[in-house]
Amino acid sequence: MAAISIDSQRLWKSLMDLARIGATEKGGVRRLALSRLDGEARDLFIRWCKEAGCDIAIDGIGNIFARRVGRNNALPPIITGSHIDTQPSGGKFDGNYGVMSGLEVIRSLNDHKIRTEAPIEVAVWTNEEGSRFTPVMMGSGVFVGAFPLESTLQRADLEGVTVGQALEQIGYAGAEKIGGRPVGAYFEAHIEQGPILEDTRKVIGVVLGALGLRWYDVVVTGQDAHAGPTPMRLRKDALLAAAKMVAEINALAYRYQPDGRGTVGFLQVKPNSRNVIPGEARFSVDLRHAQDEALDRMESEMRAACERFAREGKVSASVECVANYPACNFEAGCVAAVRNAAQTLGLSHMDIVSGAGHDAIYMARVAPTSMIFVPCEGGISHNEIENAKEEDLAAGCNVLLNVMLQKAQIAD
Amino acid sequence: MAAISIDSQRLWKSLMDLARIGATEKGGVRRLALSRLDGEARDLFIRWCKEAGCDIAIDGIGNIFARRVGRNNALPPIITGSHIDTQPSGGKFDGNYGVMSGLEVIRSLNDHKIRTEAPIEVAVWTNEEGSRFTPVMMGSGVFVGAFPLESTLQRADLEGVTVGQALEQIGYAGAEKIGGRPVGAYFEAHIEQGPILEDTRKVIGVVLGALGLRWYDVVVTGQDAHAGPTPMRLRKDALLAAAKMVAEINALAYRYQPDGRGTVGFLQVKPNSRNVIPGEARFSVDLRHAQDEALDRMESEMRAACERFAREGKVSASVECVANYPACNFEAGCVAAVRNAAQTLGLSHMDIVSGAGHDAIYMARVAPTSMIFVPCEGGISHNEIENAKEEDLAAGCNVLLNVMLQKAQIAD
Repeated sequence: MAAISIDSQRLWKSLMDLARIGATEKGGVRRLALSRLDGEARDLFIRWCKEAGCDIAIDGIGNIFARRVGRNNALPPIITGSHIDTQPSGGKFDGNYGVMSGLEVIRSLNDHKIRTEAPIEVAVWTNEEGSRFTPVMMGSGVFVGAFPLESTLQRADLEGVTVGQALEQIGYAGAEKIGGRPVGAYFEAHIEQGPILEDTRKVIGVVLGALGLRWYDVVVTGQDAHAGPTPMRLRKDALLAAAKMVAEINALAYRYQPDGRGTVGFLQVKPNSRNVIPGEARFSVDLRHAQDEALDRMESEMRAACERFAREGKVSASVECVANYPACNFEAGCVAAVRNAAQTLGLSHMDIVSGAGHDAIYMARVAPTSMIFVPCEGGISHNEIENAKEEDLAAGCNVLLNVMLQKAQIAD
Repeated sequence: MAAISIDSQRLWKSLMDLARIGATEKGGVRRLALSRLDGEARDLFIRWCKEAGCDIAIDGIGNIFARRVGRNNALPPIITGSHIDTQPSGGKFDGNYGVMSGLEVIRSLNDHKIRTEAPIEVAVWTNEEGSRFTPVMMGSGVFVGAFPLESTLQRADLEGVTVGQALEQIGYAGAEKIGGRPVGAYFEAHIEQGPILEDTRKVIGVVLGALGLRWYDVVVTGQDAHAGPTPMRLRKDALLAAAKMVAEINALAYRYQPDGRGTVGFLQVKPNSRNVIPGEARFSVDLRHAQDEALDRMESEMRAACERFAREGKVSASVECVANYPACNFEAGCVAAVRNAAQTLGLSHMDIVSGAGHDAIYMARVAPTSMIFVPCEGGISHNEIENAKEEDLAAGCNVLLNVMLQKAQIAD
């Protein structure tokens, strides 16, 4: 364990300086992927990295790699990073914290004149948010081969501007070959974007992996009828059946704690009139769990509940699976490294599974990977009021420094 | 009991002839209140009534009264009637059946040269549907003093045309003084607009009155959050709480059978996004019952359930009553007359309470009143596919003939 620490104030200042680019009145940031503001933020990051002695490489999808050389540069690099694009009404910490933490690790190594065996890199992944261009996690997805480069460059925003054109406009259509090279390990520091650490009063989340996710579209079909003359027993109320399904989808997720999630976020009623018994209700289902076999059982229970309530309510229900992302398990050694670092630094910590998507989930396909979560206020993210404590951010960055050093090894 | 019957085929033919005015491709009728087509239908009705020897009076809100004189015309008239305006996509029977039944009663009395003591009148009430101008049941409402004439004439449709202007355009701004004169009794024949008679295999519904009705707006407020990182126990899911309320509102109505109704017809979710736990759900509640004190209890149970599910779900719920129509009980003598007529005619019958609004509900404020329901196919109304059987329509009209004669008394 290195007996050095990062500079908490410097980390905070770099986050606040970066947040000025695209700052909103309510204290958030609007910095859409590959916009002029994203370009400005990238320029600033690169200036800071060059000042810290790094070499810069930019690949064909615009991912930036700032490299601090090691003693043996034939070794695969130990990479950290995240993204600096934001949601349309985003916050100062989502993504930006992971990138600024990587920069702070390099600055701290410089402060203490520490040389590593393997090179260390800080990556800025293009378009993690997916707000302007889909798919989300575009840069890391292309890096690991999940999406082909050529077709991804053709993806257009609502104005018809393609990813390729936007990269050219801000000068980030890089020359570096995409992916393919070995990566020693990948770590990503991130705000939790959920309330668990705050609620449990822990500073460090040791991220074991990411929940598997399945999305469904459910259509319940009954019969429109006048609310007055139609007695209860002769109704075919699509909303009533849907309401029971919604309650049961939540109830079943409670049977799969702590990792199960069941959410109905979207529901639409037809004809949606005060005195008409609804003939149709459509809703979405979002099921998540850390184990795919648990997701299989959740899906079975959800389908059975929909069938039962449809039958009881004399309506029909169709359930269609529209997305299926398997659960992701991070490499045991990287997870243990994060846990040990938190332990050694005397930081309160807990194992946690990411409910949201992160570039690290793609990186786990090509490299030993883990993540470090720190609390955010009220668990709120993707919101201008997103907030986090300076000391928690520093704690996560110190854990990052330690695991990066452990994997890259101190040379001298 | 008169030993005469109405002419079933003539009744059917007059219904079909009337249905040509505003006929739609799918077999329904679109004849909005005070439109040119409504004017044409009124003209046809008046021509038929004059051919049947009636005197015509039109009042200031456009209600038409076709009068067949009795022996003692100082006696208050026995009135029947309904409306001939339709929903935008309406059927051939809603309202029109009651008016054509009144005409058929007069024609049948003529056929058999029967003179009554009291005069008999057939009323056509203006704008029962409320589709073009609000409020609904406008003509009968003005007649009984529920709405003032002057302000009602100022009500405008979506194009800015007022009721007064529309009456002038079709020539139905009548001179007759509104209401105020005694009415001996009022009967209205109508299709049920619900499924009970068909389901119970009865031909005649003896209408005891109308359900009281209360409307509420409920707003459930929780907290938007990301469906992935937010564990079940830390959620404030507005839709989940709303779904439990919807289920309980239906369940409580089942505890007030056969007359209780509880319906959620409208529900809206915010932000209504697949992977966001809903922070808000708004819905309507429609509670109905034949007794106001039962409605009081249903309201209390509904409010208690909303409070309980809000508390359990860590959300808040506001419940606002936005409409309150007391239950209506028809006069016992008129109800008994309908029941006795059905019995004597050997028609299967059952007591029933109207779940929908009708002109008879206003007329009950100023005269002894009841209604006669006949089955409609599948209980479907306010729809172009609305349908009814010729023999059922004739049965209801025969009941009407008998109760009119009983109340008006055969003179010779």
